[in-house]
Amino acid sequence: MDSDAVDSETVIEDLQRGGLRFIQWRGAFRFGMDSVLLADFIKCKKGGAILDLCTGTGIIPVLLTARTEAARVTGLEIQPESAEIARENAALNGLQAVIGIITGDLRRIAQHCPAAAFDAVSANPPYIKYRGGLVNPDAAVALARHEIACGLEDVAAAAAYALKPRGHFYMVHKPHRLAEIICALRRVKLEPKALRFAHPRVADRPSLVLVEAVKNGGAGVTVMPPLIIYDENGAYTPEVSRIYGAQPD
Amino acid sequence: MDSDAVDSETVIEDLQRGGLRFIQWRGAFRFGMDSVLLADFIKCKKGGAILDLCTGTGIIPVLLTARTEAARVTGLEIQPESAEIARENAALNGLQAVIGIITGDLRRIAQHCPAAAFDAVSANPPYIKYRGGLVNPDAAVALARHEIACGLEDVAAAAAYALKPRGHFYMVHKPHRLAEIICALRRVKLEPKALRFAHPRVADRPSLVLVEAVKNGGAGVTVMPPLIIYDENGAYTPEVSRIYGAQPD
Repeated sequence: MDSDAVDSETVIEDLQRGGLRFIQWRGAFRFGMDSVLLADFIKCKKGGAILDLCTGTGIIPVLLTARTEAARVTGLEIQPESAEIARENAALNGLQAVIGIITGDLRRIAQHCPAAAFDAVSANPPYIKYRGGLVNPDAAVALARHEIACGLEDVAAAAAYALKPRGHFYMVHKPHRLAEIICALRRVKLEPKALRFAHPRVADRPSLVLVEAVKNGGAGVTVMPPLIIYDENGAYTPEVSRIYGAQPD
Repeated sequence: MDSDAVDSETVIEDLQRGGLRFIQWRGAFRFGMDSVLLADFIKCKKGGAILDLCTGTGIIPVLLTARTEAARVTGLEIQPESAEIARENAALNGLQAVIGIITGDLRRIAQHCPAAAFDAVSANPPYIKYRGGLVNPDAAVALARHEIACGLEDVAAAAAYALKPRGHFYMVHKPHRLAEIICALRRVKLEPKALRFAHPRVADRPSLVLVEAVKNGGAGVTVMPPLIIYDENGAYTPEVSRIYGAQPD
Protein backbone atom coordinates (compact mmCIF):
# COMPACT_ATOMS: atom_id res chain seq x y z
CA MET A 1 0.00 0.00 0.00
CA ASP A 2 1.19 3.49 -0.75
CA SER A 3 1.68 5.68 2.30
CA ASP A 4 2.23 9.33 3.13
CA ALA A 5 3.60 10.74 6.37
CA VAL A 6 1.10 12.68 8.51
CA ASP A 7 3.35 13.45 11.44
CA SER A 8 6.12 11.71 13.35
CA GLU A 9 3.68 9.17 14.83
CA THR A 10 1.14 8.41 12.13
CA VAL A 11 1.02 7.68 8.43
CA ILE A 12 -1.80 7.66 5.83
CA GLU A 13 -2.08 4.62 3.61
CA ASP A 14 -4.09 4.15 0.43
CA LEU A 15 -6.17 1.00 0.96
CA GLN A 16 -6.30 0.42 -2.82
CA ARG A 17 -10.01 -0.04 -2.52
CA GLY A 18 -12.45 2.49 -3.90
CA GLY A 19 -10.20 5.38 -2.88
CA LEU A 20 -10.30 4.50 0.83
CA ARG A 21 -7.44 5.87 2.87
CA PHE A 22 -6.34 4.97 6.36
CA ILE A 23 -4.36 6.71 9.10
CA GLN A 24 -2.43 4.37 11.33
CA TRP A 25 0.33 4.35 13.88
CA ARG A 26 3.80 4.50 12.45
CA GLY A 27 5.82 1.40 13.23
CA ALA A 28 3.99 0.17 16.29
CA PHE A 29 0.74 -1.75 15.92
CA ARG A 30 -0.36 -1.53 12.31
CA PHE A 31 -3.23 -3.43 10.83
CA GLY A 32 -2.28 -6.55 8.96
CA MET A 33 -3.60 -9.36 6.86
CA ASP A 34 -5.71 -10.61 9.78
CA SER A 35 -7.92 -7.50 9.57
CA VAL A 36 -8.20 -7.76 5.80
CA LEU A 37 -9.16 -11.45 5.94
CA LEU A 38 -11.64 -10.83 8.76
CA ALA A 39 -13.34 -7.97 6.89
CA ASP A 40 -13.71 -10.23 3.86
CA PHE A 41 -15.17 -13.02 6.02
CA ILE A 42 -17.91 -10.85 7.55
CA LYS A 43 -21.36 -10.87 6.03
CA CYS A 44 -24.10 -8.39 6.88
CA LYS A 45 -27.47 -7.79 5.27
CA LYS A 46 -28.21 -4.52 3.53
CA GLY A 47 -29.12 -1.86 6.04
CA GLY A 48 -27.83 -3.94 8.96
CA ALA A 49 -25.93 -2.81 12.04
CA ILE A 50 -22.44 -4.09 12.82
CA LEU A 51 -20.44 -3.71 16.03
CA ASP A 52 -16.65 -4.09 15.82
CA LEU A 53 -15.05 -4.90 19.17
CA CYS A 54 -11.37 -4.05 19.79
CA THR A 55 -11.60 -1.78 16.77
CA GLY A 56 -8.22 -0.11 17.30
CA THR A 57 -7.75 2.62 14.71
CA GLY A 58 -10.88 1.44 12.92
CA ILE A 59 -9.59 -0.62 10.01
CA ILE A 60 -12.45 -3.14 10.17
CA PRO A 61 -15.22 -0.48 10.09
CA VAL A 62 -13.55 1.29 7.15
CA LEU A 63 -13.10 -1.94 5.19
CA LEU A 64 -16.66 -3.05 6.00
CA THR A 65 -18.10 0.07 4.40
CA ALA A 66 -16.56 -1.15 1.14
CA ARG A 67 -17.36 -4.83 1.75
CA THR A 68 -20.96 -4.77 2.98
CA GLU A 69 -24.09 -2.68 2.64
CA ALA A 70 -24.45 -2.24 6.39
CA ALA A 71 -26.20 1.00 7.31
CA ARG A 72 -24.15 1.49 10.46
CA VAL A 73 -20.81 0.23 11.72
CA THR A 74 -19.93 0.96 15.34
CA GLY A 75 -16.39 0.48 16.63
CA LEU A 76 -15.64 0.02 20.34
CA GLU A 77 -12.10 0.77 21.51
CA ILE A 78 -10.64 0.99 25.01
CA GLN A 79 -7.64 3.18 24.17
CA PRO A 80 -8.60 6.87 23.73
CA GLU A 81 -5.72 7.60 21.35
CA SER A 82 -6.62 4.72 19.03
CA ALA A 83 -10.33 5.61 19.20
CA GLU A 84 -9.49 9.19 18.20
CA ILE A 85 -7.56 8.01 15.15
CA ALA A 86 -10.48 5.69 14.31
CA ARG A 87 -12.75 8.77 14.25
CA GLU A 88 -10.26 10.60 12.05
CA ASN A 89 -10.25 7.61 9.71
CA ALA A 90 -14.02 7.75 9.39
CA ALA A 91 -13.80 11.50 8.66
CA LEU A 92 -10.89 11.11 6.25
CA ASN A 93 -13.13 8.87 4.12
CA GLY A 94 -16.31 10.93 4.57
CA LEU A 95 -17.87 8.04 6.48
CA GLN A 96 -18.99 9.89 9.64
CA ALA A 97 -22.63 9.07 8.87
CA VAL A 98 -21.90 5.34 8.69
CA ILE A 99 -19.11 4.76 11.21
CA GLY A 100 -19.45 5.60 14.89
CA ILE A 101 -16.56 5.10 17.31
CA ILE A 102 -17.14 4.60 21.03
CA THR A 103 -14.32 4.88 23.52
CA GLY A 104 -15.03 2.22 26.11
CA ASP A 105 -14.23 -1.08 27.75
CA LEU A 106 -16.00 -4.13 26.29
CA ARG A 107 -16.12 -5.65 29.78
CA ARG A 108 -18.65 -2.91 30.56
CA ILE A 109 -20.40 -3.03 27.20
CA ALA A 110 -23.85 -2.41 28.73
CA GLN A 111 -22.70 1.12 29.55
CA HIS A 112 -21.92 1.76 25.88
CA CYS A 113 -24.25 -0.24 23.64
CA PRO A 114 -27.86 -1.45 23.73
CA ALA A 115 -28.43 -5.19 24.16
CA ALA A 116 -29.43 -7.42 21.22
CA ALA A 117 -29.14 -4.52 18.80
CA PHE A 118 -26.61 -5.70 16.18
CA ASP A 119 -26.98 -8.02 13.22
CA ALA A 120 -23.29 -8.81 13.27
CA VAL A 121 -20.43 -8.39 15.74
CA SER A 122 -16.79 -8.66 14.72
CA ALA A 123 -13.55 -8.83 16.68
CA ASN A 124 -9.84 -8.97 16.03
CA PRO A 125 -8.93 -9.26 19.70
CA PRO A 126 -5.57 -9.62 21.45
CA TYR A 127 -4.19 -13.05 20.61
CA ILE A 128 -1.82 -13.71 23.47
CA LYS A 129 -2.88 -15.04 26.86
CA TYR A 130 -1.72 -12.67 29.59
CA ARG A 131 -0.07 -14.33 32.53
CA GLY A 132 1.45 -11.20 33.99
CA GLY A 133 5.06 -10.24 33.56
CA LEU A 134 6.83 -8.57 30.67
CA VAL A 135 4.89 -7.35 27.68
CA ASN A 136 5.61 -4.73 25.04
CA PRO A 137 6.54 -1.49 26.84
CA ASP A 138 4.32 0.49 24.46
CA ALA A 139 0.94 0.41 26.24
CA ALA A 140 -1.05 0.59 22.99
CA VAL A 141 0.80 -2.38 21.54
CA ALA A 142 0.61 -4.33 24.80
CA LEU A 143 -3.18 -3.89 25.08
CA ALA A 144 -3.72 -4.78 21.43
CA ARG A 145 -1.59 -7.93 21.55
CA HIS A 146 -2.07 -9.33 25.06
CA GLU A 147 -5.25 -10.21 26.88
CA ILE A 148 -4.65 -7.57 29.53
CA ALA A 149 -7.86 -5.58 29.18
CA CYS A 150 -9.97 -8.40 27.73
CA GLY A 151 -9.76 -12.15 27.39
CA LEU A 152 -11.62 -14.52 25.10
CA GLU A 153 -14.43 -14.87 27.63
CA ASP A 154 -14.88 -11.08 27.77
CA VAL A 155 -15.01 -10.79 23.98
CA ALA A 156 -17.50 -13.67 23.75
CA ALA A 157 -19.71 -12.20 26.48
CA ALA A 158 -19.72 -8.75 24.86
CA ALA A 159 -20.67 -10.26 21.49
CA ALA A 160 -23.43 -12.37 23.01
CA TYR A 161 -24.80 -9.28 24.75
CA ALA A 162 -24.77 -7.07 21.66
CA LEU A 163 -26.10 -9.53 19.06
CA LYS A 164 -29.70 -9.85 18.05
CA PRO A 165 -31.14 -13.39 18.32
CA ARG A 166 -29.59 -15.42 15.46
CA GLY A 167 -27.05 -12.63 14.94
CA HIS A 168 -23.61 -13.58 13.65
CA PHE A 169 -20.27 -13.19 15.38
CA TYR A 170 -17.03 -13.08 13.36
CA MET A 171 -13.55 -13.29 14.81
CA VAL A 172 -9.98 -13.78 13.63
CA HIS A 173 -7.57 -15.41 16.04
CA LYS A 174 -4.62 -17.77 16.38
CA PRO A 175 -5.31 -21.46 15.66
CA HIS A 176 -3.36 -22.33 18.81
CA ARG A 177 -6.28 -20.94 20.84
CA LEU A 178 -8.98 -22.82 18.93
CA ALA A 179 -10.13 -25.16 21.70
CA GLU A 180 -10.43 -22.25 24.14
CA ILE A 181 -12.22 -20.14 21.52
CA ILE A 182 -14.81 -22.81 20.77
CA CYS A 183 -15.57 -23.47 24.42
CA ALA A 184 -15.69 -19.76 25.32
CA LEU A 185 -18.19 -19.13 22.53
CA ARG A 186 -20.40 -22.12 23.35
CA ARG A 187 -20.53 -21.13 27.02
CA VAL A 188 -22.35 -17.92 26.04
CA LYS A 189 -24.55 -19.69 23.45
CA LEU A 190 -22.58 -18.49 20.45
CA GLU A 191 -22.46 -21.70 18.41
CA PRO A 192 -19.50 -22.02 16.01
CA LYS A 193 -20.97 -22.50 12.54
CA ALA A 194 -17.98 -21.92 10.23
CA LEU A 195 -14.21 -22.13 10.59
CA ARG A 196 -11.60 -21.23 8.02
CA PHE A 197 -7.88 -21.71 8.49
CA ALA A 198 -5.41 -19.47 6.65
CA HIS A 199 -2.14 -21.21 5.78
CA PRO A 200 0.88 -19.25 4.48
CA ARG A 201 1.52 -22.11 2.06
CA VAL A 202 -0.40 -25.33 1.55
CA ALA A 203 2.24 -27.37 3.39
CA ASP A 204 2.26 -25.00 6.39
CA ARG A 205 0.31 -24.97 9.61
CA PRO A 206 -2.34 -22.23 9.62
CA SER A 207 -1.26 -18.87 10.98
CA LEU A 208 -4.81 -17.57 11.49
CA VAL A 209 -8.31 -18.94 11.97
CA LEU A 210 -11.54 -17.20 11.01
CA VAL A 211 -14.52 -18.13 13.17
CA GLU A 212 -18.21 -17.51 12.53
CA ALA A 213 -20.70 -18.23 15.30
CA VAL A 214 -24.46 -17.78 15.54
CA LYS A 215 -26.26 -16.65 18.68
CA ASN A 216 -28.39 -19.55 19.89
CA GLY A 217 -27.46 -21.60 16.79
CA GLY A 218 -27.70 -25.38 16.74
CA ALA A 219 -24.62 -27.62 16.94
CA GLY A 220 -22.73 -28.34 13.73
CA VAL A 221 -19.83 -26.44 12.17
CA THR A 222 -18.67 -26.17 8.57
CA VAL A 223 -14.90 -26.30 8.23
CA MET A 224 -14.17 -24.52 4.98
CA PRO A 225 -11.47 -25.27 2.40
CA PRO A 226 -8.04 -24.04 3.49
CA LEU A 227 -7.30 -20.42 2.63
CA ILE A 228 -3.82 -20.53 1.14
CA ILE A 229 -2.02 -17.17 1.19
CA TYR A 230 0.99 -17.70 -1.09
CA ASP A 231 1.51 -19.92 -4.11
CA GLU A 232 4.68 -21.89 -4.79
CA ASN A 233 6.32 -18.76 -6.24
CA GLY A 234 5.66 -16.67 -3.12
CA ALA A 235 2.94 -14.61 -4.83
CA TYR A 236 -0.55 -14.15 -3.41
CA THR A 237 -2.94 -16.86 -4.52
CA PRO A 238 -5.85 -15.74 -6.73
CA GLU A 239 -8.21 -15.83 -3.73
CA VAL A 240 -6.03 -13.55 -1.59
CA SER A 241 -5.47 -11.23 -4.56
CA ARG A 242 -9.27 -11.02 -4.87
CA ILE A 243 -9.64 -10.27 -1.17
CA TYR A 244 -7.09 -7.48 -1.29
CA GLY A 245 -8.85 -5.93 -4.25
CA ALA A 246 -12.36 -6.90 -3.21
CA GLN A 247 -15.37 -4.83 -4.05
CA PRO A 248 -18.74 -5.44 -2.37
CA ASP A 249 -20.21 -8.87 -3.21
CA MET B 1 -6.42 -54.23 -1.96
CA ASP B 2 -6.68 -57.79 -3.22
CA SER B 3 -9.44 -59.82 -1.67
CA ASP B 4 -10.49 -63.47 -1.46
CA ALA B 5 -13.89 -64.78 -0.53
CA VAL B 6 -14.10 -66.60 2.81
CA ASP B 7 -17.81 -67.31 2.84
CA SER B 8 -20.99 -65.58 1.76
CA GLU B 9 -20.66 -62.92 4.49
CA THR B 10 -16.97 -62.19 4.83
CA VAL B 11 -13.92 -61.60 2.66
CA ILE B 12 -10.16 -61.57 3.34
CA GLU B 13 -8.19 -58.58 2.07
CA ASP B 14 -4.44 -58.19 1.71
CA LEU B 15 -3.56 -54.97 3.56
CA GLN B 16 -0.46 -54.53 1.35
CA ARG B 17 1.54 -53.95 4.47
CA GLY B 18 4.08 -56.49 5.65
CA GLY B 19 1.87 -59.38 4.61
CA LEU B 20 -1.00 -58.37 6.92
CA ARG B 21 -4.38 -59.73 5.94
CA PHE B 22 -7.81 -58.74 7.15
CA ILE B 23 -11.20 -60.42 7.31
CA GLN B 24 -14.11 -58.08 7.04
CA TRP B 25 -17.79 -58.03 6.36
CA ARG B 26 -18.77 -58.33 2.76
CA GLY B 27 -20.56 -55.28 1.49
CA ALA B 28 -21.89 -53.87 4.74
CA PHE B 29 -19.62 -51.87 7.03
CA ARG B 30 -16.07 -52.18 5.71
CA PHE B 31 -13.13 -50.25 7.04
CA GLY B 32 -12.20 -47.20 5.04
CA MET B 33 -9.67 -44.45 4.71
CA ASP B 34 -10.68 -43.05 8.11
CA SER B 35 -9.22 -46.11 9.85
CA VAL B 36 -6.06 -45.99 7.76
CA LEU B 37 -5.52 -42.27 8.47
CA LEU B 38 -6.25 -42.74 12.17
CA ALA B 39 -3.78 -45.63 12.49
CA ASP B 40 -1.11 -43.48 10.85
CA PHE B 41 -1.89 -40.57 13.21
CA ILE B 42 -1.47 -42.62 16.40
CA LYS B 43 1.85 -42.57 18.22
CA CYS B 44 2.80 -44.95 21.01
CA LYS B 45 6.11 -45.54 22.72
CA LYS B 46 7.90 -48.86 22.36
CA GLY B 47 6.42 -51.39 24.73
CA GLY B 48 3.36 -49.24 25.41
CA ALA B 49 -0.26 -50.31 25.82
CA ILE B 50 -3.00 -49.08 23.48
CA LEU B 51 -6.77 -49.39 23.86
CA ASP B 52 -8.89 -49.10 20.72
CA LEU B 53 -12.51 -48.20 21.45
CA CYS B 54 -15.25 -49.11 18.95
CA THR B 55 -12.75 -51.49 17.38
CA GLY B 56 -15.27 -53.21 15.08
CA THR B 57 -13.54 -56.05 13.23
CA GLY B 58 -10.18 -54.84 14.58
CA ILE B 59 -8.64 -52.93 11.71
CA ILE B 60 -6.99 -50.34 13.98
CA PRO B 61 -5.28 -52.95 16.23
CA VAL B 62 -4.00 -54.87 13.20
CA LEU B 63 -2.66 -51.72 11.52
CA LEU B 64 -1.12 -50.49 14.78
CA THR B 65 0.98 -53.63 15.08
CA ALA B 66 2.66 -52.56 11.84
CA ARG B 67 2.73 -48.84 12.69
CA THR B 68 3.92 -48.79 16.30
CA GLU B 69 6.06 -50.82 18.65
CA ALA B 70 3.31 -51.12 21.24
CA ALA B 71 3.59 -54.29 23.31
CA ARG B 72 -0.15 -54.71 23.62
CA VAL B 73 -3.18 -53.48 21.69
CA THR B 74 -6.60 -54.09 23.23
CA GLY B 75 -9.76 -53.63 21.20
CA LEU B 76 -13.16 -53.08 22.82
CA GLU B 77 -16.24 -53.85 20.76
CA ILE B 78 -19.91 -53.96 21.72
CA GLN B 79 -21.11 -56.26 18.92
CA PRO B 80 -20.22 -59.92 19.57
CA GLU B 81 -20.11 -60.82 15.87
CA SER B 82 -17.67 -58.02 15.06
CA ALA B 83 -15.56 -58.81 18.13
CA GLU B 84 -15.34 -62.44 17.01
CA ILE B 85 -14.08 -61.40 13.59
CA ALA B 86 -11.59 -59.05 15.29
CA ARG B 87 -10.22 -62.10 17.18
CA GLU B 88 -10.03 -64.05 13.92
CA ASN B 89 -8.13 -61.15 12.38
CA ALA B 90 -5.58 -61.22 15.19
CA ALA B 91 -5.19 -64.99 14.73
CA LEU B 92 -5.04 -64.76 10.93
CA ASN B 93 -1.95 -62.57 11.32
CA GLY B 94 -0.41 -64.54 14.21
CA LEU B 95 -0.93 -61.55 16.49
CA GLN B 96 -2.79 -63.26 19.37
CA ALA B 97 0.05 -62.38 21.76
CA VAL B 98 -0.18 -58.67 20.93
CA ILE B 99 -3.87 -58.05 20.22
CA GLY B 100 -6.60 -58.75 22.75
CA ILE B 101 -10.27 -58.23 21.91
CA ILE B 102 -12.86 -57.59 24.62
CA THR B 103 -16.57 -57.84 23.90
CA GLY B 104 -18.12 -55.06 25.94
CA ASP B 105 -19.87 -51.72 26.17
CA LEU B 106 -17.59 -48.71 26.55
CA ARG B 107 -20.25 -47.04 28.72
CA ARG B 108 -19.37 -49.72 31.29
CA ILE B 109 -15.66 -49.69 30.65
CA ALA B 110 -14.78 -50.15 34.33
CA GLN B 111 -16.18 -53.69 34.06
CA HIS B 112 -13.77 -54.47 31.24
CA CYS B 113 -10.53 -52.50 31.65
CA PRO B 114 -8.38 -51.20 34.51
CA ALA B 115 -8.32 -47.44 35.07
CA ALA B 116 -5.35 -45.30 34.00
CA ALA B 117 -3.65 -48.30 32.42
CA PHE B 118 -3.10 -47.27 28.78
CA ASP B 119 -0.47 -45.04 27.16
CA ALA B 120 -2.76 -44.33 24.23
CA VAL B 121 -6.46 -44.73 23.49
CA SER B 122 -7.87 -44.58 19.97
CA ALA B 123 -11.41 -44.40 18.58
CA ASN B 124 -13.13 -44.36 15.23
CA PRO B 125 -16.60 -43.95 16.75
CA PRO B 126 -20.02 -43.61 15.12
CA TYR B 127 -20.15 -40.23 13.40
CA ILE B 128 -23.86 -39.53 13.23
CA LYS B 129 -25.89 -38.06 16.06
CA TYR B 130 -28.80 -40.37 16.89
CA ARG B 131 -32.13 -38.62 17.20
CA GLY B 132 -34.26 -41.72 17.02
CA GLY B 133 -36.12 -42.81 13.92
CA LEU B 134 -34.90 -44.63 10.85
CA VAL B 135 -31.36 -45.90 10.66
CA ASN B 136 -29.73 -48.64 8.60
CA PRO B 137 -31.80 -51.81 9.09
CA ASP B 138 -28.58 -53.84 9.48
CA ALA B 139 -27.95 -53.62 13.23
CA ALA B 140 -24.16 -53.87 12.86
CA VAL B 141 -24.07 -51.01 10.41
CA ALA B 142 -26.51 -48.93 12.43
CA LEU B 143 -24.46 -49.28 15.63
CA ALA B 144 -21.22 -48.49 13.84
CA ARG B 145 -22.56 -45.39 12.10
CA HIS B 146 -25.03 -43.84 14.55
CA GLU B 147 -24.51 -42.83 18.17
CA ILE B 148 -27.03 -45.38 19.39
CA ALA B 149 -24.83 -47.31 21.79
CA CYS B 150 -22.36 -44.50 22.49
CA GLY B 151 -22.14 -40.77 21.97
CA LEU B 152 -19.16 -38.45 21.96
CA GLU B 153 -19.44 -37.96 25.71
CA ASP B 154 -19.34 -41.72 26.30
CA VAL B 155 -16.26 -42.14 24.12
CA ALA B 156 -14.51 -39.22 25.82
CA ALA B 157 -15.36 -40.53 29.30
CA ALA B 158 -14.12 -44.03 28.46
CA ALA B 159 -10.85 -42.65 27.10
CA ALA B 160 -10.34 -40.41 30.14
CA TYR B 161 -10.93 -43.41 32.40
CA ALA B 162 -8.53 -45.73 30.59
CA LEU B 163 -5.63 -43.35 29.95
CA LYS B 164 -2.61 -42.98 32.19
CA PRO B 165 -1.91 -39.42 33.35
CA ARG B 166 -0.57 -37.53 30.31
CA GLY B 167 -1.72 -40.38 28.08
CA HIS B 168 -2.79 -39.56 24.53
CA PHE B 169 -6.21 -39.96 22.95
CA TYR B 170 -6.57 -40.21 19.17
CA MET B 171 -9.85 -40.01 17.29
CA VAL B 172 -11.08 -39.65 13.72
CA HIS B 173 -14.43 -37.97 13.20
CA LYS B 174 -16.43 -35.65 10.98
CA PRO B 175 -15.38 -31.97 10.95
CA HIS B 176 -19.05 -31.02 11.29
CA ARG B 177 -18.92 -32.29 14.89
CA LEU B 178 -15.71 -30.42 15.79
CA ALA B 179 -17.19 -27.96 18.30
CA GLU B 180 -18.99 -30.77 20.12
CA ILE B 181 -15.84 -32.95 20.04
CA ILE B 182 -13.64 -30.25 21.53
CA CYS B 183 -16.06 -29.44 24.33
CA ALA B 184 -16.76 -33.12 25.12
CA LEU B 185 -13.03 -33.80 25.42
CA ARG B 186 -12.29 -30.75 27.56
CA ARG B 187 -15.15 -31.58 29.93
CA VAL B 188 -13.30 -34.79 30.90
CA LYS B 189 -9.88 -33.08 31.00
CA LEU B 190 -8.72 -34.43 27.65
CA GLU B 191 -7.12 -31.31 26.20
CA PRO B 192 -7.02 -31.13 22.39
CA LYS B 193 -3.34 -30.76 21.42
CA ALA B 194 -3.36 -31.49 17.67
CA LEU B 195 -5.93 -31.34 14.88
CA ARG B 196 -5.51 -32.37 11.29
CA PHE B 197 -8.14 -31.95 8.62
CA ALA B 198 -8.23 -34.31 5.63
CA HIS B 199 -9.51 -32.67 2.44
CA PRO B 200 -10.37 -34.74 -0.66
CA ARG B 201 -8.78 -31.99 -2.77
CA VAL B 202 -7.13 -28.75 -1.68
CA ALA B 203 -10.18 -26.68 -2.73
CA ASP B 204 -12.60 -28.94 -0.82
CA ARG B 205 -13.95 -28.81 2.68
CA PRO B 206 -12.40 -31.49 4.89
CA SER B 207 -14.19 -34.83 5.00
CA LEU B 208 -12.45 -36.03 8.16
CA VAL B 209 -10.68 -34.58 11.18
CA LEU B 210 -7.99 -36.30 13.21
CA VAL B 211 -7.88 -35.23 16.85
CA GLU B 212 -5.12 -35.80 19.41
CA ALA B 213 -5.80 -34.91 23.05
CA VAL B 214 -3.69 -35.27 26.18
CA LYS B 215 -5.11 -36.25 29.56
CA ASN B 216 -4.73 -33.25 31.87
CA GLY B 217 -2.80 -31.36 29.20
CA GLY B 218 -2.55 -27.56 29.19
CA ALA B 219 -4.53 -25.40 26.78
CA GLY B 220 -3.13 -24.84 23.30
CA VAL B 221 -3.69 -26.86 20.13
CA THR B 222 -1.54 -27.29 17.04
CA VAL B 223 -3.58 -27.25 13.84
CA MET B 224 -1.47 -29.16 11.34
CA PRO B 225 -1.06 -28.54 7.61
CA PRO B 226 -4.04 -29.81 5.61
CA LEU B 227 -3.87 -33.47 4.64
CA ILE B 228 -4.82 -33.49 0.96
CA ILE B 229 -6.02 -36.88 -0.31
CA TYR B 230 -6.05 -36.50 -4.10
CA ASP B 231 -3.94 -34.41 -6.44
CA GLU B 232 -5.33 -32.54 -9.44
CA ASN B 233 -5.24 -35.76 -11.49
CA GLY B 234 -7.34 -37.70 -8.97
CA ALA B 235 -4.36 -39.77 -7.81
CA TYR B 236 -3.35 -40.13 -4.16
CA THR B 237 -0.96 -37.40 -3.05
CA PRO B 238 2.55 -38.55 -2.04
CA GLU B 239 1.62 -38.29 1.64
CA VAL B 240 -1.44 -40.53 1.31
CA SER B 241 0.52 -42.96 -0.85
CA ARG B 242 3.08 -43.11 1.95
CA ILE B 243 0.36 -43.70 4.56
CA TYR B 244 -1.14 -46.55 2.57
CA GLY B 245 2.25 -48.18 2.19
CA ALA B 246 3.57 -47.12 5.58
CA GLN B 247 6.07 -49.14 7.52
CA PRO B 248 6.80 -48.41 11.20
CA ASP B 249 8.43 -44.99 11.70
